[in-house]
Amino acid sequence: MKKNYSLKNVGILGGGQLARMLVMAGHDLGLRMHVLSENEEDPAAQVTRHWYKGSVDNKKDLVSFLNEVNVATFESEFLDAKLLQEVSRQHQFQIFPRPYLMARLQDRLSQKQLLQKHELNSSSFLEWSPSTTWEDLQKLSKKAVVLKARRFGYDGNGTFILRNLKEYENFLAKNQNSPNGFIVEPFVDFKRELSLICARNKMGQFVHYPLAETLQKDARCFWVKGPVKHNLEKSFIKKCERFLHSINYVGVMGIEIFDCGKELLVNELAPRVHNTGHHSLDSMNYDQFTYHLMCLISADLPEPELVAPGFAMVNLLGENNKDPSWEIPEKAQIYWYGKEKNRPGRKMGHINSIANNPKSALSQALKALKEFSL
Amino acid sequence: MKKNYSLKNVGILGGGQLARMLVMAGHDLGLRMHVLSENEEDPAAQVTRHWYKGSVDNKKDLVSFLNEVNVATFESEFLDAKLLQEVSRQHQFQIFPRPYLMARLQDRLSQKQLLQKHELNSSSFLEWSPSTTWEDLQKLSKKAVVLKARRFGYDGNGTFILRNLKEYENFLAKNQNSPNGFIVEPFVDFKRELSLICARNKMGQFVHYPLAETLQKDARCFWVKGPVKHNLEKSFIKKCERFLHSINYVGVMGIEIFDCGKELLVNELAPRVHNTGHHSLDSMNYDQFTYHLMCLISADLPEPELVAPGFAMVNLLGENNKDPSWEIPEKAQIYWYGKEKNRPGRKMGHINSIANNPKSALSQALKALKEFSL
Repeated sequence: MKKNYSLKNVGILGGGQLARMLVMAGHDLGLRMHVLSENEEDPAAQVTRHWYKGSVDNKKDLVSFLNEVNVATFESEFLDAKLLQEVSRQHQFQIFPRPYLMARLQDRLSQKQLLQKHELNSSSFLEWSPSTTWEDLQKLSKKAVVLKARRFGYDGNGTFILRNLKEYENFLAKNQNSPNGFIVEPFVDFKRELSLICARNKMGQFVHYPLAETLQKDARCFWVKGPVKHNLEKSFIKKCERFLHSINYVGVMGIEIFDCGKELLVNELAPRVHNTGHHSLDSMNYDQFTYHLMCLISADLPEPELVAPGFAMVNLLGENNKDPSWEIPEKAQIYWYGKEKNRPGRKMGHINSIANNPKSALSQALKALKEFSL
Repeated sequence: MKKNYSLKNVGILGGGQLARMLVMAGHDLGLRMHVLSENEEDPAAQVTRHWYKGSVDNKKDLVSFLNEVNVATFESEFLDAKLLQEVSRQHQFQIFPRPYLMARLQDRLSQKQLLQKHELNSSSFLEWSPSTTWEDLQKLSKKAVVLKARRFGYDGNGTFILRNLKEYENFLAKNQNSPNGFIVEPFVDFKRELSLICARNKMGQFVHYPLAETLQKDARCFWVKGPVKHNLEKSFIKKCERFLHSINYVGVMGIEIFDCGKELLVNELAPRVHNTGHHSLDSMNYDQFTYHLMCLISADLPEPELVAPGFAMVNLLGENNKDPSWEIPEKAQIYWYGKEKNRPGRKMGHINSIANNPKSALSQALKALKEFSL
């Protein structure tokens, strides 16, 4: 049945670049895009007339914002999930992915337990407590272990790689009383990191992009290229699909993967559009932001198709506090997020490139990167 | 020299779909996009926080709007060009294309004279007056002549094809006292209509897309496909380039062309982004809206490149007054303009498609069109 999409009011909780790109994708679908964020200079606040000043973690702001929209989503899984669950239950708000899943996934411990329950391959783990000894940790790995903050970790923040007792003692001295706790994983000696962007709507339709390779630099996504192949990808993606069905997921999910050669391990799930999917703005028939919105408005999900045999994305990361400048590059598309201030490591924008193969696309994008002074 | 583009405030006079797509292209360049239009439900008013209520033909509104921006452009050449010239001179506002060119081009008579002066091939013409006789008209063509209103003609409005004295008498009865006057051209028996989208910046860099074929239906653009070839295209495009240099043009220009087989004739110039260039949102490395903005901010113009061997665009034209509905098509991109009301003939959006050749792209787009109830 054909639907009237243009009357839908869609709300985004948060005003960063992911929200901005969701808003812009929504415009092309004819949706009315609403944004709740604190600062009128936020990237997403610039790109719609329907911007509301407020905090995504404030009950009053949330309720009055959600009353304006038919359906809402978020750009970060680190919101007050309990509050979201409460207001959506009380007021029958439609929020996707569902807030109870946000609660499960925003805590690395419950996320790991969820992966384990649904038999999605991931590294072994244990819950850390101040009484955990180095010997306990060594049961996971004789080489090195990784301690990850259970909550609010991003871009390497809250992640500690420990190789010996001394490093563990240093960690303990600093983090003994960390309120959110940690989980411990063995250090995974991966060959490369991959990403899978998939989407599922309320009717249970599932689609996914081809696997992409991602390179981290200083624990931040630096570039993505693809498509890449892996001989286990078919069965792995099948498992991911079953997982999304099992948890009745609605929206785009970003799945970060360790490619260990003989196995693919889930590193982390992000219940939202994902930095490693930004390439889709140029490489695919439909980008991840559009797919996410299609899931929210219960549109049929068309099959994803590559526009070119190779794609790449490079993040434009701030390097200082000066105003950035650039020349428009020849073979790359610019997505500038309109952030007020530059600072080292800040994601200021990204560039996309397509070409006859992944390698050429990446080298075009890296060449284009030289046009930027960040 | 690298430039700081993200601090630029760009203003668009008008709030329709062309303004909307300019605004969205500006967002990706990191520009602050400002819109002046009368209705908060206008297509472009939806897609930026910087919307100003006002009339583009009101001096006070214009001046206060233009004071907010570094540079401005327009989505229609049918503004009060004299007023624009006056305020831009008085206040040193940067408006491109330049208002005096808008004045020359918005009048079909002075546009024809300009084409003639610069030896850009176009049909012969004469200025119509109430005393013009059918015999006068027959000097242009023994078959049929076309009378075109000198101003405010669009989508076939103000255009009359006359084949005999009786038709001319009917025309006279209705249009004797038309305040804006008409020009007369011979009816051109073209094989097909083509479009050339080109752009020139202040530094004199000139770029152009490949030629595209356009089909009109009920005097409105119905579809565009391309690229198409013509054995005269090289010399024709060279002439267009010389023309843009001669008039010191800044911005994108849409050139509508009659392909008469042995010659290419300019039908009409539009000093702005153009419906026949919408395909570029998916078919080219940089779309026409981005090029137009690059011209305004004096960015270097990268060479246009096709993303795929074939492209097509189909307009989504309203057919009734009901709310439109649709299924998301498989092989086409949707650009919905967010207009409040549907009505017959109204441009509600468009769809783009790319493929291995122009024909396949068009058939994909026409197939996708069936998913829409307009």
